[in-house]
Formats: sequence, C-alpha cells, structure tokens
Amino acid sequence: MIRRVWAPFAPQVTLVTSSERIEMRAAGDGWWSGELNEPTTRTDYAFSIDGGEPLPDPRSPSQPNGPFGFSRPVDHSRFKWSDAGWRQPPLGSAVIYECHVGTFSTSGTFDGAIERLGHLKDLGITHLELMPVAEFEGERGWGYDGVDLWAPHHAYGGPDGLKRLVDACHEAGLGAILDVVYNHLGPSGNFLQRFGPYHTNRYQTPWGDAINLDAAGSYETRRFLCDNALMWLREYHFDALRLDAVHAIFDASATHFLEQLAAEVHTLAAQLGRPLAVIAESDLNQPRLVTAPEAGGYGLDAEWSDDFHHAIHAFLTGERSGYYQDFGSLADVAKVLGHVYVYDGKHSKFRRRAHGRPVRGLSGDRFVVCIQNHDQVGNRAMGERLGHLISSERLKIAAALLISSPYVPLIFQGEEWAASSPFQYFVDYRDPKLAAAVREGRRKEFAHFIDDPDRVPDPQASETIDRSRLNWEERASEPHREIFEWYRSLIALRHRTPDLCDPRLEHTSLEFDDVAHWLAMRRGATLVVCNFASLSQQLPMPDDASTLKVLLGSSSGVTIGEHHILMPPSSVAILSIAR
Amino acid sequence: MIRRVWAPFAPQVTLVTSSERIEMRAAGDGWWSGELNEPTTRTDYAFSIDGGEPLPDPRSPSQPNGPFGFSRPVDHSRFKWSDAGWRQPPLGSAVIYECHVGTFSTSGTFDGAIERLGHLKDLGITHLELMPVAEFEGERGWGYDGVDLWAPHHAYGGPDGLKRLVDACHEAGLGAILDVVYNHLGPSGNFLQRFGPYHTNRYQTPWGDAINLDAAGSYETRRFLCDNALMWLREYHFDALRLDAVHAIFDASATHFLEQLAAEVHTLAAQLGRPLAVIAESDLNQPRLVTAPEAGGYGLDAEWSDDFHHAIHAFLTGERSGYYQDFGSLADVAKVLGHVYVYDGKHSKFRRRAHGRPVRGLSGDRFVVCIQNHDQVGNRAMGERLGHLISSERLKIAAALLISSPYVPLIFQGEEWAASSPFQYFVDYRDPKLAAAVREGRRKEFAHFIDDPDRVPDPQASETIDRSRLNWEERASEPHREIFEWYRSLIALRHRTPDLCDPRLEHTSLEFDDVAHWLAMRRGATLVVCNFASLSQQLPMPDDASTLKVLLGSSSGVTIGEHHILMPPSSVAILSIAR
Repeated sequence: MIRRVWAPFAPQVTLVTSSERIEMRAAGDGWWSGELNEPTTRTDYAFSIDGGEPLPDPRSPSQPNGPFGFSRPVDHSRFKWSDAGWRQPPLGSAVIYECHVGTFSTSGTFDGAIERLGHLKDLGITHLELMPVAEFEGERGWGYDGVDLWAPHHAYGGPDGLKRLVDACHEAGLGAILDVVYNHLGPSGNFLQRFGPYHTNRYQTPWGDAINLDAAGSYETRRFLCDNALMWLREYHFDALRLDAVHAIFDASATHFLEQLAAEVHTLAAQLGRPLAVIAESDLNQPRLVTAPEAGGYGLDAEWSDDFHHAIHAFLTGERSGYYQDFGSLADVAKVLGHVYVYDGKHSKFRRRAHGRPVRGLSGDRFVVCIQNHDQVGNRAMGERLGHLISSERLKIAAALLISSPYVPLIFQGEEWAASSPFQYFVDYRDPKLAAAVREGRRKEFAHFIDDPDRVPDPQASETIDRSRLNWEERASEPHREIFEWYRSLIALRHRTPDLCDPRLEHTSLEFDDVAHWLAMRRGATLVVCNFASLSQQLPMPDDASTLKVLLGSSSGVTIGEHHILMPPSSVAILSIAR
Repeated sequence: MIRRVWAPFAPQVTLVTSSERIEMRAAGDGWWSGELNEPTTRTDYAFSIDGGEPLPDPRSPSQPNGPFGFSRPVDHSRFKWSDAGWRQPPLGSAVIYECHVGTFSTSGTFDGAIERLGHLKDLGITHLELMPVAEFEGERGWGYDGVDLWAPHHAYGGPDGLKRLVDACHEAGLGAILDVVYNHLGPSGNFLQRFGPYHTNRYQTPWGDAINLDAAGSYETRRFLCDNALMWLREYHFDALRLDAVHAIFDASATHFLEQLAAEVHTLAAQLGRPLAVIAESDLNQPRLVTAPEAGGYGLDAEWSDDFHHAIHAFLTGERSGYYQDFGSLADVAKVLGHVYVYDGKHSKFRRRAHGRPVRGLSGDRFVVCIQNHDQVGNRAMGERLGHLISSERLKIAAALLISSPYVPLIFQGEEWAASSPFQYFVDYRDPKLAAAVREGRRKEFAHFIDDPDRVPDPQASETIDRSRLNWEERASEPHREIFEWYRSLIALRHRTPDLCDPRLEHTSLEFDDVAHWLAMRRGATLVVCNFASLSQQLPMPDDASTLKVLLGSSSGVTIGEHHILMPPSSVAILSIAR
C-alpha cells in the first residue's frame, strides 16, 4: 500500500503504523511517497515529520478515533451504490432542507437521518443539505470546526454511514448537498500547518490567518481544496456543495479560487454525466459570484442571500440590534422579494460602509433564501427559532413569502412544524482551556442582548445538544401539525404552479403600503397578498384582474370582493388572477 | 476661512494657527468644521485631536515645511492656465516618458523639468509621466513614501511649480501623467491613523497594515483617495494617473476600489470634456483590471505589464536571479510580444504558485510596457541601466522591440541616450534609526547579488542622488548620440506607420528560432526582424512578400535577398512588406 503526502519543507517524512516505520522518499514538488509492507489495505497509518509525533494524513479519508488518532484508508470502490441513473432536479425547482446530523434524529447519525427521509418527501423537499460532516474534535458540534476535511465524522457513522445516507436520499428522490468549510480549520486537531503553507498571514479572518490561496505553495493548497470538493461529489455522490462563508476566503490571484472550484466541479459533472452545483454562503452582496465566467463572474451556481432573512426577520420581530439595525421596514421586505439585496451599494449603518451592488441580469434561482437557518437560529443567545418569537399567524406569512419567492427556498430542520426545541451552540473539546474560551466567548458575544449572561447555554455541556435535538413526537400535536400542513401546502403549491417556480425577477413585482401594513407580490398571474396589520383590511385588486381565485389562504376569512380583497388580521393568501 | 476634517473617533478637534485655537464642531458623519477669525486665505493651520500636538491636514494642499509642518491653504482658482482646449492623444498613440523630478534636471524641480520638454518633443514623446510628487519627508527621495497625498513636494516647487510644469507640457503638446500611491503611506510623517480608520489589519502589505477600503469607515477612506485622484486631474490638469502597485490594494467589497476610481475619473472626463485615463501598475497578470465594467472588469484604461520587461531583460542579459528565474527563453520574448503575459496561468518557480490568466479580447493599448523603468533600474544593487549591462547593438534590438510592439511603450529618463548615470535608491529621513533601517534593508536585499555589501550605495547619502542625476552634456557625445538617434528614429517610425500603432493583438504574429537566435514580429504589413546571434544569418522571407523594403535598420549591413533577409550580427531591422 503506497501512501503519499505533501510536505514541501519537511527534511524527512516517516510513514508510521502500529508495527512499521517506513522512511518515505521525496517524490517531487514537495510530495513524499512510502510503501507499507503490510499487505492489507485497512492498516491505520500516520506521518511523522522529521521524527516528530505521528500526525494524521491531511487527506485522511477516515479518523475513527478522532482528529488526534491515526488515519484509516478507505476503498471507495467497495460501497454498493443503488443510485445509478440518478440526476438531481435543477435548483430552480428546489426546496432545500438544512439538517444537522447530530440533532436531526434521536441517534444523531447518518443512519438516523435515513429514517426521516419519508417525512421530507411528504413535505415536498427536493434536496437534503447536511451541515458539515468533516471530522472535528469530540462527539458533538455544529461541524464548522472540522480539521480532517476528507473524513466523515466518526460519531455520525463515518464514510459508510454517509454513503448510505446519500444513497437513501437518491433512492427517495432527494438530492444531497454537503456544507464544506474552506475558509478556516477548527481550533483543535488542525495539523495542516505542520505539513505545508496551508495558511497565510497576509489576510486575517475571524479565526486567524486565512487559508493560503494566492501565496507561495498555493498551487497545492488550492488542489487540496478542489480535490476535496471533487471527492465528495465523486466518491460520496453528493449533488452539490454549499461553501461556508466565502467572504472569509481571500484570493487576489488572477483566477479566484471560487472560479477554479466551480469550473472543476462543472467539468466533473460533464465527466460523470450528472448535474453538480456549487452554492456559496456569502456576506458580500456580490453578484460576481454567480455571474457566468464569460461575463467576468466566478460561475457559481447559487449564493445564499442573507438580506432576505434579515429584512423579513427584522420587520416581523421588531428586533433592531446587531445587523438587524440595517433592516426593519416593509420597503426592505419588498426590496428583497423583488431585487435580492437590500444593500446593493447603499450605506450600511451596521457595517459603517457602503455594501453590495445591484443584481442585474441574473435570475432568482441563483439565490438561496430562508427565514431561518442554523446561523440565524443558533447564533442567538438562546437559540430561539422564529416560531418562538412571533405568532403562528405571522410565521405563516413569513413562510408564504419564503416559499412563493422567486428564489430557492431553504428550510431549517424543524422549521416545518415550528419545533419547540431551540438550536443552540455546542462543542465537545477535550482541552478545558479551549472549552472555557468558547464558553466565555459566547457569554461575551451575547452580553448586550441578554439580561443574565448565566442564562447563555454552556456550549460544552451535553444538555445543550440534547435541548437542541428535534422532538419528532410533537409533530402530530397542535400547533405543530397545523404549521406542518401549512408548509406542506405551500411547497406543493409552489411545485405545481409554474408562476411560483419562475425564477425571472422581471416577472415578479411588488406593491406595499408601509402605513396600512400590507404587501402584494405579483408573480405572473399569481398574487401573494399579506396583511401584517392586526385589523382586517381591504387590499386593492390588480387592475388587470377580471376574477381572482384563492389558491391557498392562511385564514378562511380571506374574501374576494368585487374591487378588493378582504384580508383578516395577520393573514396571507395566494391567488390566481384570471384576465 | 472654514476648515473641515474627518476624525470620526475624536472626542474634540481644535483648529490651530500661530495665533488662534478654535474648537471645531461636529458636522456629522465624523466630520468636524471650524472657522478661523483671520480673514486671509493664506494662514497656515493644523489640527489638534483631543488637545494633542498639532497635526497637518490629511487633505493638506501644501506642506511648505515638510510633513511635520503646518498645512498651507491653496486657492486653485488663482493659477492662470494657458491650456484651454488641450486634449491628450489616445493611449494607443502614446509614447510615455517616466521622469523623476529630483534627478531629471540640474535643479531637480518642476521648473527644471520645463526646460527639457523640447528634448522630449524632439524625441517623439507624447506623455510625460512624473514619479510621485506628494509630500514626503526630506529634500530627496523617489516619492513612494509620500504622506501628504494632496500636497506637491515643497522641494520640487510646490503647487504652483507643478501647475507650471503641467501647463508647459500641454503648451508643448505633451500629456501629463502623475504616479500616485494608494497602497500605503510612507514610514515618516504619516498621521492619518490619528484621524480615522485609514488602515486595516485585515490585510498585510510589504509596508504593514493595508489601506482600509472595505472595513468600517471605508466610505470616507475611499472618498479620500478618489477625491485625491479627481483633485490632481481637475486642479492640476493632469491627463492620467498611474496607480502604484495595485496588487497591494486589497478590497473584497462588491465594487472594487479600482472600479469605483476608474468610473469617477471617467465621469469627471465627461464633465470636463477632455479625456482622462487611469493606468495601474500591477503584478497580478489579471486582465480584469482593464476589462470593461460591462464585461465584469474594473474598467481601468491600461495596466503595466512587467512580463514584457522581464522576458526581454532576462533573455538579453542572461540574468536568472530573483524573478528573472521565471524568464530567459526566446519563446518568452515571443510570448510577451504576441500575448502580453508569459505567466497566464502557468506555474511560476519564483512565486511557487500558478500566476496570471490569459488576455482575451483586449487590445494592446491596454498594456504599458518598458525595457527599463525606475524600479527595474533602481531596484538593483547599483542602479544599473540596461545600457550598462549589454552592448549597444543588443540595446538597439531591445529598443526596437519596445517601440514597435503592439503595446504602449514607456521610456525611463535617460534611456533614450543610454545615460551613463545610474538610478539608485535615495531617501532623506531625519530619524537616524529609520535611515539606518533603510540602509540595512538595502544591504540585506542585495546581499545575494553583490560580492561586497559595502558597495551598495547608502540611500541616505546625498551623493547617491547626485550620482543618479542625468548628465545632459553627454547626450551630444558618442555612443549616447547614436542611441538617441536610434530611439528618435524608432519613435518617429512608430508614429508614421499605421501598422506599428495598431493595437490589435490579432494583427501581430511571431516567428522565432530558439537555436539560431532570431525572431520576427509581423505587424500587419510591417516586419520587425531581430538577429540576436553574434554571427550573420539569413532569415526567411515571409511567404506572402513579393518585395521587402528596409524602413529602419540598426546596421547598414541588413540586405534583402531574393528568398531571405541577411542580418548582420546583433542587428534589428524594420521592413515593409509589399504583396
């Protein structure tokens, strides 16, 4: 068994197993190669640089004993896939479900998730999106602190478990999206810098030195990440990747890393004969990300647009702290529904600078939007969901705007039944100093938002993840059942109504009254009308409508008059317009 | 007289003159405003932040006593311009002359430069480019350590002197280009950080923290630089700006600072009714800089392309140290002549990474090229010019390739007569520690290139600038006169030959023989043939040529045969092709 590793500055690298120590030989361009005498392909191994402690393979495919253990080879050809012929549906028809494996099911494993795929199909979901699964320290965590980027987390079920889940998704007709973190590595168990120049101090991120994508040695570090992306798509049959926080990925070279990555993924799609997509989480309000390369863009398939969430959240909750200070008006809600960004070049008070640029010539399916996600729920002091903050009636309006928007809607696990469980921040570090630092960091972060910092859940406590686990039993009881039915009806309506799937932003128009608190979103011959007021009110009928028909209403009190639509307090309705 | 200053974090700002101290009032958005009782507009002033020492105005238009002195107001409306109706010629027809004011003339002043404009006209120059003139510490320096970006250096003649020079350029029919440094400020006399968040530690440059263009407060710091650019164009009548080292300008926001700057300059051009241009010095090999905004570019008018210099320099001198290790073959020379970059995505040994991307759909006049400039000459241990390193014959070939290339040629002062004076690095810092650090820095930088580090000129010594000053007397004597005539003939030929001004890269094609050491550059029906060998040789005739005519040859021995061109050793000729 030959093992290879890139360690350009190492004087010597030794391949280590429990029974052997093999001196590796330089194989050119900073790579080292060594062959084990052991005939089996399953021998755990590690690398020792210049006689130092054994370190896991930077490209380790499996870390059964965590980031501080030996690496285990994986023979990807051994898994029996049953998804031949599978092709994911286009993003324009997608409804994505974001899932944290550790809290989604009782067992908190890939296999546990498989049991709930029927629920997702019933709901109308098209794609399951997994929060990061790359090996991180401990048995529980969100996963954004991954350190072995090629190894599915041991506590979730490792490589085979993940393959079973993706295979089951495809069998159920669901696409599978994986969240990957290419902007930093976790604080515990990251040995990459011992192997090579994976980091650069030229750029600083919230987590320290940036990943090196444009300095010396970056040919290999870019390959490391691109190869990693291709590996998930090729070996684990994922349909798409969601790139975490690309605003913390810095690259001033002539071809941005994201452009290279998108091009390589699309080339693989052509090779494999099935569509593959790259979706970026971005705080940049930068249309270049999803603009075609021939128009000077990076050619990503889609990007998350947080302004959508912030505009609706701030308007409905009245919250104005932190970044919500930049949002709050009904005009902002109308702007995100029609033009993607609120901040398209205008000054942001929160950022104290101009932010974003207008979206021109792009269609809505280039943007993934939500009214809740792991960050917006979990990065609150108490991890409250939107359903914990506003009434069911207003929650239904938010859901209707999400599902009938011209964008790709994303739902966070449990959102579909207004789950009672919060989603809180949890980690499982063995270093008490690190655990204490994370705990203190959370307390400080929320000091301004909460009266008693002692109420902030301890990320290190196992109760915190327990509290965050979905309670599937409650689904059948009110008010959860009613919310679930609402989401299911909305999604079904989206799927069967061509106007609602139409991603062309020029086919969407908005009208609203900031004083009376109503909003109407016209999508072709389909109309979404919202009354945010706590009084009934009459909304104007579209000029060109001869008759209106209610397709779906949050209240039975929605009434079509001759020249107006009577909307009960806090209600929403989706109507078809006949001319 | 009202004075204004941006100091967003200052608790109080005081306007200080020799006779008054006026408490300024907050005027919104971090700006402060104060009015002097003094009626005259000429009173020197400074600002004291929270009772601290008086500091010059960040936007000071004049620092008659250097960066540590008070600021002096300038009434730009008082200068009597005589350049009404002036319009610069397009870059496609330009031949640029780079000039360091302090060493160009005996007096080292703007007025001294005026006396030499006739020489430039005689040579065929179209644009005079001044190395930075913004106030820096001391009486002598290259100028890249400017700290008062709005104030023409006092030792050069201050604001009025600079206006006289630009006005004289225009009167002589020369465009005027100013080199501006927006990537850092000098190490001595920079007080910007006392006023506001002009810097950010998010990005690191070779000079420390980067200029803040995308973090909090960046609306004003971007305005500071854009307003500065517009000021030089509007108040000093410059025709173009050359932006120093844009690869050290970091901006991850949705609209890159360079795009904003180019758009504002072009808007000013429309307002003023005369063409204005922005040219970037760039080490990025990134065509996006000069790509139109509608194609996803930043819309700059042109960029410097160093590969041109490096390919020709390394091939002709045989030097292979530092960045020259990436160059050296005749194939590289052919590639820069036909395709702008040698590094268009391929791996660079020197950089230890992939570098650049191909130029597609851009014309040659988007690229400014040279075979010598202040950096390539001055950033050698001894400041040797190309003429000090190779024979006159080979220098003539290099000049012919430069002047007949499809790009915008730039000549460094004295190059046109192979000046005997070097161009060395000099500073004039009053802080002995800083002076010593610069001196040591130079010695270390060149330790690998020079046997005896003591030979590296002391930047602080006044002899170093004296040595670097042009000796205008030598022009009339050989070999200088002959070189000057060669440059003058080449430039005249370029101006009168449409093929040689044609910037379309698809109209340029190359042929070369790496063993026989000849190269032929075809530009439409004009042919530039070079014999780099030290033996005569016969070069093939173009297939479609019925007759060839020598337009210009470096040797009288160039002979047109029936099926070949006989080229003497180390010679170049420019021929017209008749079909």
